Amino acid sequence: MRPFASTISLEEARRRLSAAIQPIARTERVLLDAAAGRVAAADVASAIDVPPFARSAMDGYAVVAADTTGATRSTPVRLRMLDRAFTGEVSSAVVTAGACVEIATGAPLPKGADAVVMVEETARDGDIVDIFAAAAAGQHVGKRAADIATGDRIIAAGHLLTPSRIGALAAIGVTAVEVYARPHVAILSTGNEVVEPGRQLAPGQIFDVNRYTLGAVVSTHGGLPELHPPAHDSLDTLVDALDACADADLIVFSGGSSVGDRDLVVDAIAKRGEMVFHGIAVRPGKPTAFALIGGTPFFGMPGNPTSCLSNAYILLVPYLRAVARLPPHTPRTVQVPLGRRIASAVGRHQFFTVRVQDGVAWPAFKGSGDITSLSSADGYIEIPADRNVVEERELVDVTLF
Amino acid sequence: MRPFASTISLEEARRRLSAAIQPIARTERVLLDAAAGRVAAADVASAIDVPPFARSAMDGYAVVAADTTGATRSTPVRLRMLDRAFTGEVSSAVVTAGACVEIATGAPLPKGADAVVMVEETARDGDIVDIFAAAAAGQHVGKRAADIATGDRIIAAGHLLTPSRIGALAAIGVTAVEVYARPHVAILSTGNEVVEPGRQLAPGQIFDVNRYTLGAVVSTHGGLPELHPPAHDSLDTLVDALDACADADLIVFSGGSSVGDRDLVVDAIAKRGEMVFHGIAVRPGKPTAFALIGGTPFFGMPGNPTSCLSNAYILLVPYLRAVARLPPHTPRTVQVPLGRRIASAVGRHQFFTVRVQDGVAWPAFKGSGDITSLSSADGYIEIPADRNVVEERELVDVTLF
Repeated sequence: MRPFASTISLEEARRRLSAAIQPIARTERVLLDAAAGRVAAADVASAIDVPPFARSAMDGYAVVAADTTGATRSTPVRLRMLDRAFTGEVSSAVVTAGACVEIATGAPLPKGADAVVMVEETARDGDIVDIFAAAAAGQHVGKRAADIATGDRIIAAGHLLTPSRIGALAAIGVTAVEVYARPHVAILSTGNEVVEPGRQLAPGQIFDVNRYTLGAVVSTHGGLPELHPPAHDSLDTLVDALDACADADLIVFSGGSSVGDRDLVVDAIAKRGEMVFHGIAVRPGKPTAFALIGGTPFFGMPGNPTSCLSNAYILLVPYLRAVARLPPHTPRTVQVPLGRRIASAVGRHQFFTVRVQDGVAWPAFKGSGDITSLSSADGYIEIPADRNVVEERELVDVTLF
Repeated sequence: MRPFASTISLEEARRRLSAAIQPIARTERVLLDAAAGRVAAADVASAIDVPPFARSAMDGYAVVAADTTGATRSTPVRLRMLDRAFTGEVSSAVVTAGACVEIATGAPLPKGADAVVMVEETARDGDIVDIFAAAAAGQHVGKRAADIATGDRIIAAGHLLTPSRIGALAAIGVTAVEVYARPHVAILSTGNEVVEPGRQLAPGQIFDVNRYTLGAVVSTHGGLPELHPPAHDSLDTLVDALDACADADLIVFSGGSSVGDRDLVVDAIAKRGEMVFHGIAVRPGKPTAFALIGGTPFFGMPGNPTSCLSNAYILLVPYLRAVARLPPHTPRTVQVPLGRRIASAVGRHQFFTVRVQDGVAWPAFKGSGDITSLSSADGYIEIPADRNVVEERELVDVTLF
């Protein structure tokens, strides 16, 4: 048995993690159809004007504005219609004094015209159009390049590609975009007793839970999970497992990071890298380690499913998103009264899962080995290290899953 | 020109949409690795106990609790160690009076033992173990089925598959899960002027933006976009386009739903289905239509990119998520003062895009044809139909994208 030399506070753990973040540098090109939620790796400037031509913003008549001076419903200005300008076509007509062209919304403004009169302010009889209102130059005309001008930077490196930014890329005719690669996250559970789901359990064995919960968290927060089969608790096996993960951008093991005789992850790290911290004054999740393995960040998560997933939310998600260059995750919170008194332990930051029912938070925590502590909960509350009890009916902030 | 007979309020549009929601009934089987964010289509009950055996929650010694009565550090109880019980193995030892088995956290409790004494409360010399503290029966033992019992329902139909629920499925050895299919959403832009990005623009043409913004929204909110090339403005083309989308769960067209001579989507709907509404007292996005085409819901979105995307957020996202059986989307909001007075129009519900800078919201709206109104904004504010101005410095709720 090798007890923790000491634990660090949650704040200190977060500080050391922040200091170790290396935002991903690798980039790749993706089709615009697959770019939603990715992060642009380069500025994109427009090679065209959008719209590429002046166009009508209304259905009506393209006119020379000066022609319409003084026009009213009782004293209309009478113009001769030369042509009809539809969308997707360019009218060859040239609008000169006394003339007009019928025009549809979005159609290019014909040469010579500098304004559009809405159809509601006109009357037409054959080729003769009466204009009932004076038009100012530029009226109802969408200027060439009003949306985007040639040379405008429409995307900056680091921008999250939201639907509207993808729309801006489409608008300039782009079909593919350079984005930061998703971090590859190698995930592996350690433990002699751990077996992949789908196999038959022998006596003493349990199914691998953490690989799946961690995989789901990683894929939800911008990473690409690389799933490895469980590794047995021997130093050679664990060192081999670390070596097998060497190409990943981030390595996450679970189990084997506590203080038992077979908790050999610490020894494997000593052989291949450098420990940044081991042991956090937080519950659940105390036996959490963070190391650098040849420069690659390594999370050693607790083996207990709830401790593992809880710490994944608290420590891994912010880290992974920063590596992936995604904006911080901001989970929804609700403030509700607590249904039942909870006792905590002074000196460690504690997380309690809760169910929210009819506006009241009820403790849902069973044991840190119990995945149903989380799967049947709606969120969690935090009790800081300097408090040891939260009373019934006290208002608590529930962070929702 | 065929003006809107009348527009309906945003609330009425939402009511009619809600009434037309048909949550998807089709299901499919996905591997657990790919199940994050999907919706369970059936209850899942456990066929096993988790854990499948009583196990130690500590590193220490498995004992018969009654043996340890009265043990203290000065008057230890001396036991004979029979074996070592490691994880993943079952010790063949039977713990009888006067005996014990060394045990690791997670290892099955040997026969005969009913408690575990922590290693910290023991001392060992060869096979002789001194116990320094009395153990109660059940102490540091994780009971068989403490997490999940055979027959327990761990997932209910309709549950969103969060990481912890995926963990619960892994815990019972499940490798695949029945989920609701993602709704197939056929997306098509109409307009003679609309050309797919990647092609060369001829005079009078613009690139298709809405297909990409709608595709990004649909894939973000649980749908599978089926992207169709732009369709020209002729009744036959539009009816053919509707027919080509007949297998989709939801059809979204953009453009052609206004009142111009070539806005023929209304006529195409009349040929193939039934209009539910056409025209909403909302800006941007007034010319929005909703119809049922042989039972399939159809959204006719405005052609202007900002109007189209704005209405996608406001109307399509809630609808799509309900069809996909996903929980409602709850975008983040911030309350900040407005940097500049905005005038709206009484009688219609208005959305204004804003940038949030240093805690102040600045109008970002250009024109409803301008995709950069959205792509350069952080969110939007709403001005209800009964107000016509929001003053500088007034607090506004910004819904963030």
